[in-house]
Amino acid sequence: MKSPEEIVNLLMMKNDAFSQWLGIQVLEIRKGYCKLQMQVRKEMLNGFYIAHGGITYSLADSALAFASNSYGYKAVSVETSISHTESIKEGDVIRAETEELHRSNKIAVYLIKIYSMPDKRTVAIFKGTVYISSQEW
Amino acid sequence: MKSPEEIVNLLMMKNDAFSQWLGIQVLEIRKGYCKLQMQVRKEMLNGFYIAHGGITYSLADSALAFASNSYGYKAVSVETSISHTESIKEGDVIRAETEELHRSNKIAVYLIKIYSMPDKRTVAIFKGTVYISSQEW
Amino acid sequence: MKSPEEIVNLLMMKNDAFSQWLGIQVLEIRKGYCKLQMQVRKEMLNGFYIAHGGITYSLADSALAFASNSYGYKAVSVETSISHTESIKEGDVIRAETEELHRSNKIAVYLIKIYSMPDKRTVAIFKGTVYISSQEW
Amino acid sequence: MKSPEEIVNLLMMKNDAFSQWLGIQVLEIRKGYCKLQMQVRKEMLNGFYIAHGGITYSLADSALAFASNSYGYKAVSVETSISHTESIKEGDVIRAETEELHRSNKIAVYLIKIYSMPDKRTVAIFKGTVYISSQEW
Repeated sequence: MKSPEEIVNLLMMKNDAFSQWLGIQVLEIRKGYCKLQMQVRKEMLNGFYIAHGGITYSLADSALAFASNSYGYKAVSVETSISHTESIKEGDVIRAETEELHRSNKIAVYLIKIYSMPDKRTVAIFKGTVYISSQEW
Repeated sequence: MKSPEEIVNLLMMKNDAFSQWLGIQVLEIRKGYCKLQMQVRKEMLNGFYIAHGGITYSLADSALAFASNSYGYKAVSVETSISHTESIKEGDVIRAETEELHRSNKIAVYLIKIYSMPDKRTVAIFKGTVYISSQEW
Repeated sequence: MKSPEEIVNLLMMKNDAFSQWLGIQVLEIRKGYCKLQMQVRKEMLNGFYIAHGGITYSLADSALAFASNSYGYKAVSVETSISHTESIKEGDVIRAETEELHRSNKIAVYLIKIYSMPDKRTVAIFKGTVYISSQEW
Repeated sequence: MKSPEEIVNLLMMKNDAFSQWLGIQVLEIRKGYCKLQMQVRKEMLNGFYIAHGGITYSLADSALAFASNSYGYKAVSVETSISHTESIKEGDVIRAETEELHRSNKIAVYLIKIYSMPDKRTVAIFKGTVYISSQEW
C-alpha cells in the first residue's frame, strides 16, 4: 500500500494546476494528518483588498483531501463547512492543520484550523466529512 | 440608498482581482437574488483534470455576497457549507443561482445551487448564513 | 421492494418511543419526499417558554430519515445542519417538508423547511446529507 | 456581571421543562466552556432501539447555549451542524464537552464532542455558531 507521501504526490502531481496556482506547500503529512502552507498574493484578493473566501476554502479543502486519503484508500468529500473568522491580506502566510475527529470504515470527519503565521491568529474554521471507498490508491 | 447593481459594482470593482481571475459574469441581480456564471479553465483543475472544490465554492461565495448585500446594508458571511455532487471539467460553464431562505434584521440564510450549462446538472449545493450590519453601502 | 408507506411504518413502528413522545404525524410520504407535523407541548419548552432547538431538529431529522429511506434502500445520516430562524411556543403546530436537492447511488442531500401552521412562517432551515447503502428494506 | 454558574441557573431555571425531561446535569461550567452529562432512557429511542438523533443534538445544543452565554452577554444560535458517528442505546451515559474555536465581539464558534462514558467513544460531533448581543444577562 502507498505511503501518505506517495498519495499526496499523486494528488498534487505535476498537472495539479490549481494547487500550483495557489502555491500550496506540504509542510507535514502522515496518516490522518497534514499541515499545509501558502502565501496570499494580489490575484487572490477581492475588491476590499482582503483574500476572497474561496482562497482559505481551497487551502482547507486540499488539506481535507490529503489527510483523508493518507491511509491508502480513496476518499471523496461529502460535505464541508467553513467560517471565516478574520480577514487576511496580501503577503500573509496562512497554514491549514487537520485534526481527525472521527474515522470509521466508510466515513471520516476532520476539523481544519486555518491560521496566519507567525502570529497563529485563527482566520477560518473548516469541518469536512468524507466518504471512504474500498478502492486503494 | 444604492441599487443592487451599484452594490455589485462596488463589490466587484476594478480591483477585485480574484473574481476577475475566475471570470465571473453577473447574469442577473436584484434584491435578495443573483445569478452568476463562469467557465472552468485549465488553471482551475486539480490533478484529476476536474475542477478543484475551491472553484465552485468561490463562485457560490461571491453569489452569497452579492445577494445578501443587495438590500443596501453591509452583510458578512458567518458560516457557509457546500456539498460537491458532480465533477466538472475544463470548458464547462457553471452557474450559481441563489434562493433566499430567510431574512431578518440581523441574519439571512441563502441556498445556492451550482449547476452546469446548458444541461442544468447540479454540481454543488451551498448554504450560506450572513450577519447583516446596520451600515449602509 | 417495499413502498414508502411500508418503510415509514417500519421506521416508526410501535416501539419508536421518541417519535411517539414528540407526537409526529406523517401527512404525506412518497419516494424522496415527506411532510410531517407535530404540536409543541409544555414539556418541549426551555426556560424562556419557547421550544428547545432540539425539538425542531428532531422533527427535521425524522423527515430526513423518512424521505431518504423511501426508495427502499437503507440510508443513514452523515451530516446535518440547522438554523433556527424564529422562536416557537406552546401550542404551535409545526411542519417539516423535504426537498431532494441531490440523489446519487451513494449520497443524497435534502433541504427541509420547518414552518408553523397555519401562517407558514419559516421557523428553521435544515440540510441533511445521507449515505445510501445497497441494503434493501 | 453575572457568573457562568448564575447564567446557567437562569438558562436552566425551574421551568426549563425539556432539559429536565432529558435529565441534563451540569458537570462543569466556566467562561467559554462547559461539560454536560445525561443518561439515555427508553423514551429517547427510535424504532431500532438506539437513541434518536434529536437526543444528542439536544444535549449539544444546550452545551452551546451554556458555553456561549457564560461571559455574561446574551448569545443566540445562528447555525449548528452535527454528525452522528456511533449509535447509543438505552442506559448509555453521554457527555457533551465544548471547545471554543473562535470568539469575537459579535460571533463565536464552538466545537462540541459528544462521547459515551466511561469508554469515551465519540458518538457525535457538533459545531455551533452564535451571534453575541450587547445585552447583559
